[in-house]
Amino acid sequence: MTRTIKLAVLPGDGIGPEVIEQANRVLDAVLVGGDVELARTEFKLGAERFLETGETLPEEEQQAIAEHDAILFGAVGGVPGDARLKHANIERGLLLKLRFDFDHYANVRPCTLFPGVESTLRAPGEVDFVVVREGTEGPYVGNGGTLRAGTPHEVATEVSVNTAMGVERVVRYAFETAQSRPRKKLTWVHKTNVLVHAGAIWQRVVAAVSAEYPEIAVDYMHVDAATIFMVQDPARFDVIVTDNLFGDILTDLAGAIGGGIGLAASGNINPDGTFPSMFEPVHGSAPDIAGQQKADPTAAILSAALLLDHLDLGAEADRVREAVRADLAVRGDAARATAAVGDAIIAALPSR
Amino acid sequence: MTRTIKLAVLPGDGIGPEVIEQANRVLDAVLVGGDVELARTEFKLGAERFLETGETLPEEEQQAIAEHDAILFGAVGGVPGDARLKHANIERGLLLKLRFDFDHYANVRPCTLFPGVESTLRAPGEVDFVVVREGTEGPYVGNGGTLRAGTPHEVATEVSVNTAMGVERVVRYAFETAQSRPRKKLTWVHKTNVLVHAGAIWQRVVAAVSAEYPEIAVDYMHVDAATIFMVQDPARFDVIVTDNLFGDILTDLAGAIGGGIGLAASGNINPDGTFPSMFEPVHGSAPDIAGQQKADPTAAILSAALLLDHLDLGAEADRVREAVRADLAVRGDAARATAAVGDAIIAALPSR
Ligand SMILES: CC(C)[C@H](C(=O)O)[C@@H](O)C(=O)O
Ligand SMILES: CC(C)[C@H](C(=O)O)[C@@H](O)C(=O)O
Repeated sequence: MTRTIKLAVLPGDGIGPEVIEQANRVLDAVLVGGDVELARTEFKLGAERFLETGETLPEEEQQAIAEHDAILFGAVGGVPGDARLKHANIERGLLLKLRFDFDHYANVRPCTLFPGVESTLRAPGEVDFVVVREGTEGPYVGNGGTLRAGTPHEVATEVSVNTAMGVERVVRYAFETAQSRPRKKLTWVHKTNVLVHAGAIWQRVVAAVSAEYPEIAVDYMHVDAATIFMVQDPARFDVIVTDNLFGDILTDLAGAIGGGIGLAASGNINPDGTFPSMFEPVHGSAPDIAGQQKADPTAAILSAALLLDHLDLGAEADRVREAVRADLAVRGDAARATAAVGDAIIAALPSR
Repeated sequence: MTRTIKLAVLPGDGIGPEVIEQANRVLDAVLVGGDVELARTEFKLGAERFLETGETLPEEEQQAIAEHDAILFGAVGGVPGDARLKHANIERGLLLKLRFDFDHYANVRPCTLFPGVESTLRAPGEVDFVVVREGTEGPYVGNGGTLRAGTPHEVATEVSVNTAMGVERVVRYAFETAQSRPRKKLTWVHKTNVLVHAGAIWQRVVAAVSAEYPEIAVDYMHVDAATIFMVQDPARFDVIVTDNLFGDILTDLAGAIGGGIGLAASGNINPDGTFPSMFEPVHGSAPDIAGQQKADPTAAILSAALLLDHLDLGAEADRVREAVRADLAVRGDAARATAAVGDAIIAALPSR
């Protein structure tokens, strides 16, 4: 019997469509001859759509997306400084809205330095960790405001909101992730010495949940110190759990040391399955190189592998990762066209 | 005529006293034979003092410190996990209290990769930038609270407060800093696409102030992207200005790529001169290596050079930096005792 997976595809702006095209090709190639079939719906959303219609994420479209089993997302964002986008905020209105409304509380971002890939670090060592970033609260809630805007007496606030429910579920997810990995190590990152209110709730929750996972070795690091360890000894990390903003910062840094943001994949996971989870490369829309076949689709392809994992197609996901690994091992420094990378990865797919 | 400078010395905890001892020796050596005399008062503050007396920063002592021309600060903080310090928060009660009460709004942190120093980066290029970090507001204000602590319904908030006055003065300081440097480049860093309220006030202020500095090339970077550039192309930075929390994170990262946190100096500047400015290494108290003569005093010594700059002793500051540069050029990877580094830098001081 054929299993049909409903996939919502949101290629977005800039290099988004180019890299998603390759991710889709790889998905087709890895599923061919099996009993899984993808039924895709493409949604044209992002800065370009906004410029054409003034719409960011119409309610009916959001509802239609919600009917799918998973979402494959490219990248959104127009040309920086485009005056027509001044009041758009596609990031908040589309990307973050999906993460929040679909309750993607576990934003999972693995960082692996694949053999053959040169790191920006002189001596990176074995890099293989995963960041579990909280995705639905913290400083990202948009809470806050502005008084006397544009005057010398302006005051602007930004409120980080943290709940026991919200922190606990992502911390628990991170413990489960650590449990499934051989090293069984969890590092939680915050800035408890300064952000005393938000820090204390994280501290309490981690302590409580960790009592349920005696096999997991837990340590704590201030976010500033974590950036130092990430560039001086990334091998010490196994699983990292942290809040929405610290996770944003640390995963870009992790991407950079793990061979570049062109390889960094992510999953916005709703572990409860109430809403479709969403898989996207960590990189942005890079309008400066869009349409030139210069973008590396590997991050999108590795995101598609996370999507396969999430849909219980672990064997297929592993085949994609093996193909990526094989390609990176021979690719070296050579710049290749976006489609050529897709070709090479498809050619390297191990047979099932 | 002899000029007497009143210097408050706060060695603090852990390696603080060891590195400050060397900074003091270098200060004496560079000033010897000149017409400047240091009148020092030592204040024993920090975790150790707290454990002995239960005091963090008594009001009379703070007033006494305020009577000085400048502050030389080591590092504070006890052994992590020490239960007796559970309710202390020396960082907020002492270090941040001094920064806030003495209105140290420009937290200046230069990052230079000195010749002979190995960076953690494979190909760092020319690294020579300075981060101007806001020091008196943003997410550091301690504003926020906790409801239903310890229950499943706990909510904790943390409020970033940003004022036009507060943002403008530090942004202006950064423009002045850029003006004084050959490359005349200013990069402001925030997360405007997500932290829309705090981001907008920064955006407005930077735009307004930049109109007064037409010679300065200004660009903007999201904080996550800034971490990528910092490890992939740090040479692109000249002056960075950013908020208190982003500055905390970026300057630890900058320290790491600039040859390690053992070399990272900082000045907490009150440019108005209403209160004494405070100079401190970026590193912490490192209780694990305290008392073993293992700490590198170079960061403290370079902080003393910033102190000399601030007191209009630029020639003396340059002599200290030259000596540090000379020492680093020959030092190589060899680990040396804290005092031996002080000796070497004193021996390398160019004559006036
Ligand atoms: C585009 C932006 C809103 C987003 C974020 O801050 O989460 C991005 O940086 C990311 O990491 O996915
Ligand atoms: C100790 C801590 C409060 C401090 C800060 O966060 O500012 C430190 O990390 C620094 O950068 O000086």
